[in-house]
Amino acid sequence: MSEEGVMTDPERGNRTGMPEVVFAQGKSEEKLLAAVETLLDKHPVLVTKASEDQCRILKEKYPNSLVQQKMGVAVIGGVWKEGVGRCMIITAGTSDVPIAEEAALSLEYLGIEPIRAYDRGVAGIHRMQDAVDLLQKEPAIGVIVVAGMEGALPSVVAGQLKQPVVAVPTSVGYGSSFEGMAALLGMLNSCVPGITVVNIDNGFGAAAAIYRMMTNWTL
Amino acid sequence: MSEEGVMTDPERGNRTGMPEVVFAQGKSEEKLLAAVETLLDKHPVLVTKASEDQCRILKEKYPNSLVQQKMGVAVIGGVWKEGVGRCMIITAGTSDVPIAEEAALSLEYLGIEPIRAYDRGVAGIHRMQDAVDLLQKEPAIGVIVVAGMEGALPSVVAGQLKQPVVAVPTSVGYGSSFEGMAALLGMLNSCVPGITVVNIDNGFGAAAAIYRMMTNWTL
Amino acid sequence: MSEEGVMTDPERGNRTGMPEVVFAQGKSEEKLLAAVETLLDKHPVLVTKASEDQCRILKEKYPNSLVQQKMGVAVIGGVWKEGVGRCMIITAGTSDVPIAEEAALSLEYLGIEPIRAYDRGVAGIHRMQDAVDLLQKEPAIGVIVVAGMEGALPSVVAGQLKQPVVAVPTSVGYGSSFEGMAALLGMLNSCVPGITVVNIDNGFGAAAAIYRMMTNWTL
Amino acid sequence: MSEEGVMTDPERGNRTGMPEVVFAQGKSEEKLLAAVETLLDKHPVLVTKASEDQCRILKEKYPNSLVQQKMGVAVIGGVWKEGVGRCMIITAGTSDVPIAEEAALSLEYLGIEPIRAYDRGVAGIHRMQDAVDLLQKEPAIGVIVVAGMEGALPSVVAGQLKQPVVAVPTSVGYGSSFEGMAALLGMLNSCVPGITVVNIDNGFGAAAAIYRMMTNWTL
Amino acid sequence: MSEEGVMTDPERGNRTGMPEVVFAQGKSEEKLLAAVETLLDKHPVLVTKASEDQCRILKEKYPNSLVQQKMGVAVIGGVWKEGVGRCMIITAGTSDVPIAEEAALSLEYLGIEPIRAYDRGVAGIHRMQDAVDLLQKEPAIGVIVVAGMEGALPSVVAGQLKQPVVAVPTSVGYGSSFEGMAALLGMLNSCVPGITVVNIDNGFGAAAAIYRMMTNWTL
Amino acid sequence: MSEEGVMTDPERGNRTGMPEVVFAQGKSEEKLLAAVETLLDKHPVLVTKASEDQCRILKEKYPNSLVQQKMGVAVIGGVWKEGVGRCMIITAGTSDVPIAEEAALSLEYLGIEPIRAYDRGVAGIHRMQDAVDLLQKEPAIGVIVVAGMEGALPSVVAGQLKQPVVAVPTSVGYGSSFEGMAALLGMLNSCVPGITVVNIDNGFGAAAAIYRMMTNWTL
Amino acid sequence: MSEEGVMTDPERGNRTGMPEVVFAQGKSEEKLLAAVETLLDKHPVLVTKASEDQCRILKEKYPNSLVQQKMGVAVIGGVWKEGVGRCMIITAGTSDVPIAEEAALSLEYLGIEPIRAYDRGVAGIHRMQDAVDLLQKEPAIGVIVVAGMEGALPSVVAGQLKQPVVAVPTSVGYGSSFEGMAALLGMLNSCVPGITVVNIDNGFGAAAAIYRMMTNWTL
Amino acid sequence: MSEEGVMTDPERGNRTGMPEVVFAQGKSEEKLLAAVETLLDKHPVLVTKASEDQCRILKEKYPNSLVQQKMGVAVIGGVWKEGVGRCMIITAGTSDVPIAEEAALSLEYLGIEPIRAYDRGVAGIHRMQDAVDLLQKEPAIGVIVVAGMEGALPSVVAGQLKQPVVAVPTSVGYGSSFEGMAALLGMLNSCVPGITVVNIDNGFGAAAAIYRMMTNWTL
Repeated sequence: MSEEGVMTDPERGNRTGMPEVVFAQGKSEEKLLAAVETLLDKHPVLVTKASEDQCRILKEKYPNSLVQQKMGVAVIGGVWKEGVGRCMIITAGTSDVPIAEEAALSLEYLGIEPIRAYDRGVAGIHRMQDAVDLLQKEPAIGVIVVAGMEGALPSVVAGQLKQPVVAVPTSVGYGSSFEGMAALLGMLNSCVPGITVVNIDNGFGAAAAIYRMMTNWTL
Repeated sequence: MSEEGVMTDPERGNRTGMPEVVFAQGKSEEKLLAAVETLLDKHPVLVTKASEDQCRILKEKYPNSLVQQKMGVAVIGGVWKEGVGRCMIITAGTSDVPIAEEAALSLEYLGIEPIRAYDRGVAGIHRMQDAVDLLQKEPAIGVIVVAGMEGALPSVVAGQLKQPVVAVPTSVGYGSSFEGMAALLGMLNSCVPGITVVNIDNGFGAAAAIYRMMTNWTL
Repeated sequence: MSEEGVMTDPERGNRTGMPEVVFAQGKSEEKLLAAVETLLDKHPVLVTKASEDQCRILKEKYPNSLVQQKMGVAVIGGVWKEGVGRCMIITAGTSDVPIAEEAALSLEYLGIEPIRAYDRGVAGIHRMQDAVDLLQKEPAIGVIVVAGMEGALPSVVAGQLKQPVVAVPTSVGYGSSFEGMAALLGMLNSCVPGITVVNIDNGFGAAAAIYRMMTNWTL
Repeated sequence: MSEEGVMTDPERGNRTGMPEVVFAQGKSEEKLLAAVETLLDKHPVLVTKASEDQCRILKEKYPNSLVQQKMGVAVIGGVWKEGVGRCMIITAGTSDVPIAEEAALSLEYLGIEPIRAYDRGVAGIHRMQDAVDLLQKEPAIGVIVVAGMEGALPSVVAGQLKQPVVAVPTSVGYGSSFEGMAALLGMLNSCVPGITVVNIDNGFGAAAAIYRMMTNWTL
Repeated sequence: MSEEGVMTDPERGNRTGMPEVVFAQGKSEEKLLAAVETLLDKHPVLVTKASEDQCRILKEKYPNSLVQQKMGVAVIGGVWKEGVGRCMIITAGTSDVPIAEEAALSLEYLGIEPIRAYDRGVAGIHRMQDAVDLLQKEPAIGVIVVAGMEGALPSVVAGQLKQPVVAVPTSVGYGSSFEGMAALLGMLNSCVPGITVVNIDNGFGAAAAIYRMMTNWTL
Repeated sequence: MSEEGVMTDPERGNRTGMPEVVFAQGKSEEKLLAAVETLLDKHPVLVTKASEDQCRILKEKYPNSLVQQKMGVAVIGGVWKEGVGRCMIITAGTSDVPIAEEAALSLEYLGIEPIRAYDRGVAGIHRMQDAVDLLQKEPAIGVIVVAGMEGALPSVVAGQLKQPVVAVPTSVGYGSSFEGMAALLGMLNSCVPGITVVNIDNGFGAAAAIYRMMTNWTL
Repeated sequence: MSEEGVMTDPERGNRTGMPEVVFAQGKSEEKLLAAVETLLDKHPVLVTKASEDQCRILKEKYPNSLVQQKMGVAVIGGVWKEGVGRCMIITAGTSDVPIAEEAALSLEYLGIEPIRAYDRGVAGIHRMQDAVDLLQKEPAIGVIVVAGMEGALPSVVAGQLKQPVVAVPTSVGYGSSFEGMAALLGMLNSCVPGITVVNIDNGFGAAAAIYRMMTNWTL
Repeated sequence: MSEEGVMTDPERGNRTGMPEVVFAQGKSEEKLLAAVETLLDKHPVLVTKASEDQCRILKEKYPNSLVQQKMGVAVIGGVWKEGVGRCMIITAGTSDVPIAEEAALSLEYLGIEPIRAYDRGVAGIHRMQDAVDLLQKEPAIGVIVVAGMEGALPSVVAGQLKQPVVAVPTSVGYGSSFEGMAALLGMLNSCVPGITVVNIDNGFGAAAAIYRMMTNWTL
């Protein structure tokens, strides 16, 4: 035990339903590759928050993997599950797309089909109507709402439908948005009951929350 | 000049169009009464942010004045102007009413008729429709939107109409609303252009801003 | 429309599955009673964040209602639904119980049976084992974890099971807990995927989120 | 709807009097160009908060457009309106000029002639006198005040005149200016009634607010 | 040394020119009286930040002392020095007077005559002109400027004169004044060189700073 | 397990060397007494952060216990250990004494003799010399330094001696001390290596840290 | 004394048991080398928080030294002591390794053997069991726990063992981790008594604290 | 006046005793040079907070000027005054030297001889003794204390002497120093009376404050 090393958690899939995911931020090249390789022995691997350099390294090492440099996400060796369900992802603007796509790729890795409804900000709330219409009809679909700036979209969406709404604040904005703080506080203080929130820019976390819901209640 | 005293500003009405208003917070009884009396020699007086004790003192001294203890506002000796115009005040919830009424009484003192549309929060956005309908038709009406919690209402309102929207964050909320900080940041970071913001719980400030607009452009 | 008034939202139950709930904070006695009465015409009513005075007023007016003064909660005229499911509520300490009970009473109003596992803080993590054991066996049960101070319990719980975990930070603590900020940040930054978070001390919000999950996926 | 895409809002001009504006921050090259092109079919386009790279791309694609790299602003395909009115822009220092110019170009796009009075900080308050003199005589001119550091200029200006004053805090400063936070708080807490505030560095937002005022009251 | 006790610093007057001052906040009645008594053996005593109860206790015990309950200040057994010089105290509003008077009484204890010029806020900057006129003529007078809200007054004052300006932010204000934070940041970020700042509501600290200046340079 | 209840941790003493301590804040009277009683079956009990009411209740129920109302501490049924060692407690001022005494009583409960050196603030650093002299001679003594305001004392103390220094920031101060935040940040950023820090006002936590050190290394 | 220069502290080793350590951040090349050289005359030197450039310069100048560029640490001229003891370092993830290694190298310089147990985050708490088992058996070993994100690991570790636990928050994380703030607050508010905390990313400080403990109690 | 331009303040020297100083941050090359040139017509010019590029530009244009790239300071065309007095500058560490030198060059420009006593941090407080000894003897010398991290040095220095102490917090530090916030708060909350504070990294501001003191009291 006096060796420094990677301590994998091979039973996590059994315990929590979801395997270990590699958080790339701050990992050296060799530690990143070691973590991926160790897990790949057991199951396909999802990598999140990878830098451009880390993405390039992963793509070189695993040329058949899906690597999205702008989103910092890699899906290596296939997906974890299939056919779990469907989930809608709504964004306020197109600047929120990278985080929305982190969520979308994570959903796909977890076996959930993402339904994208992007660029529906509250400046023109009629734009969210078709998304709401579909959701009113199909109660089994979960909803992820991704928004920066004032983060008002989850309130407006959740006030129109019955589904669980997982809100993802993004760091899109400037000045007193304080890197997503304004959106985060807005979402936490929503006047609409039943919205839950994940960390700023945590698209993967929202996907994982939806997965926990779906795999426990759709059976 | 080596005397401590109240230094009134009798020319302020000429200079800024609006007379000095008494900010009661932290003033001793005698200083409060001295300030009111000095100004009352020249024009009717508006008092804001008065404590319950201060309201009682003012009501005793000026029994004919309009004193709203819950709002901390007193209008003494009549109003400053009449017939300046009309302004709609929209609130997200009924808990925001005290601040909305601070704005309404200030508008009345300044000669602007307040049109109240309270309790139109984004949890049920259809409730703001009649307000929006009226405003689409009457461009000369200004709009004050008062909201606590996530402060999303100004964005939704301003996305539906052409008028100037002055947003007033309130300290309604708890936890991470941080005494109105969440609403303030939400309003400052609105994705809808043309919203301006005043201090948390500053109903009077919003009324004064509308007055500046109306007296400069409705002539 | 130029009248100040309460603008009820009678279709909210149809739209979002959940009726309007009365947020009591900052409401005057008459506005509080008016809001309750208007809604009571249509369905049983839940009141949250009521002060001791407001609780007393509600109990006097509705002597048959369930009013929990310490939790600031009142359930008036019966419950909204029955038989929706079960949800476990885990607290870190006994000081977190008032917020946990706000969640429990809200769950009961929404038709979900609360299963209480209180006082399982991370100082002795073996204490959460029986709760985890039950949850490992019954995947259909949702989990609310209520914790103040460092807010570490949701991470530890979620690392042991598959269910959706809704984390409620509480303002229990002192000094640099900053009224629940430390717990909130801890929960948002959890290294365990799939935890979602609601506002500090928002027990009702967690119950509403569980209700959205259960009513969309257990059918 | 399962396609990711840009959801334009072609009716926004009719609804709010102002067309959609492209917020460039964080948009990929293709999404930026797609957004501009879609809107350009209907009306001239304003782009704000563009990076140097994005400015270069826009200039290459639209060589006849007005692109100000330092301000991050582009006006493409002409202006939205003409002859709406005049607005004065006052800055505290020359370091505030880029944000002031964002406001100026936005005003021009919206049909308002900017009158620049730069470098009038409170260190030498006599420098704002000629600006004040003009404004005292011409009540129809609105005022935008742009200042970083302590953000005191809007108070001093608004204490001298009757016009609506829209204050723009800038991130000019260092240390405890906290990227414009000091100026923002200063402006929100002004002791002079009727000042309204927009986000830090939001020159465009101030122009839009003035436009809402002018198009509703100058008719 | 294993005894708990008061460790007086009898040489402080020799070392720093100023004797120990009793900071009353949080001291039990007996500890407060013990501290005063021990110091009173050697020199007159200044007490600051005393609660109403503590002021009453001190007045009972030392009926000949000067005790200002609203300012939380007591001067017991006479003054420390006489004839050191004169210092002007300027306040923005009358709500700032309690802190200004803390400074004034501290100055008197230290032998400096306070010259009060209260209620000269930037809403009407002409009101500070007579104060400035006097100061332009008498370079030996120091200046303390006391202001809450946006804290702009020190900048405007210091831009008009040559004297050292010690700025005292006060907690006067509400909402985003954050208990004096806005004023503090405003003063620290002043664009006028040579302003120095003390803690929020620290009237005594400003007096002590002026005393250090005067006793080192006027001799 | 569906019962709400207190989940004691009887093995904590074996596991961590220290028994469970009752954190009284926010506990109802019955929950507080239940917690004390359950633990008292097994060992003497320490209660911290008790309100005045809670102290009174404990004193009535356990008249032989040591209850310090001002410190919010109760020691019931004797002490946990004896003869573990000695620890010096140094405070900056006498206002810090309540927190220092929370530490002292906790030390006594844990079997460590407190050696008090109070009122040695950095305004007169010679006052800490006798404390330092003793510590230079007796390396086996640990040191707790308790300070509010700028929290500079731990740096100065630790720069003079070899012992472990546990720093306790207190909420003594006002204005920009932000309830102890300034002292906390000061201690965390000390330029003297080897200082460790506990939460604001956490006297008990410092005692527990010293206990962990002493029981692991003095054997 | 009117010369600018480096003021070494040659007696610090005698006074505090530990020699001066060079904090490289912000030092010019010549000042850095001067500081190292001056100290090297008397004893081996530890350098912390060196940039990549500074590391390269040190390696060139002292080719036999141990320089870890990624950790920003250099050990020049040998170690300060040997054989002082052993200390376990536990990290939550592999991204925390650079800070853990700063601690490890500092321990080695101070004569303490580091025992590494990396990657034991609370997502899979069984992974810390072997570390705990060893520590339960060997009470003389101190423990440093290094964690970013929610910083929950120190609580869980300290709840399982008797040793002193020094917690090091790291800036690993994103969004509302606020560069380590979330982890710092989590550790300060731990519900487990006896944890002490050092600054964010201060691996060296934790090592120094352990050294103070060991050299005072193992004699 | 409709021209954008530089509005110089030629009377500032007469009014405040000190000429306009050029704050370079954020100024374009042409605006920077225009500002320098305009002022240079009337008196020597001081430039502060210049980037490396700006320093290079100034050096090229004014080869005879004194330009310190690392400090971001330029003195062009000679000094403003001579023979005003002497001022000691004490720093905590060598990392604080760039800000100390900003102060030193500003003092020289203002005619005050700087006496440097660098690297006297509180880790070894004996190092400040010779500085204190000199100051105790020469009361006419002012003192600037420059420190980052916990910012404790001004308290210790001011507790030993009679002079006015102007404290300059620096952004030296990491983690919870929050770019100088910890040092700033420490200095504002000093327990030693009479310390005044300027903005983080504002060496020039401290020099200007000393100049105001000296030119008003040494005549």
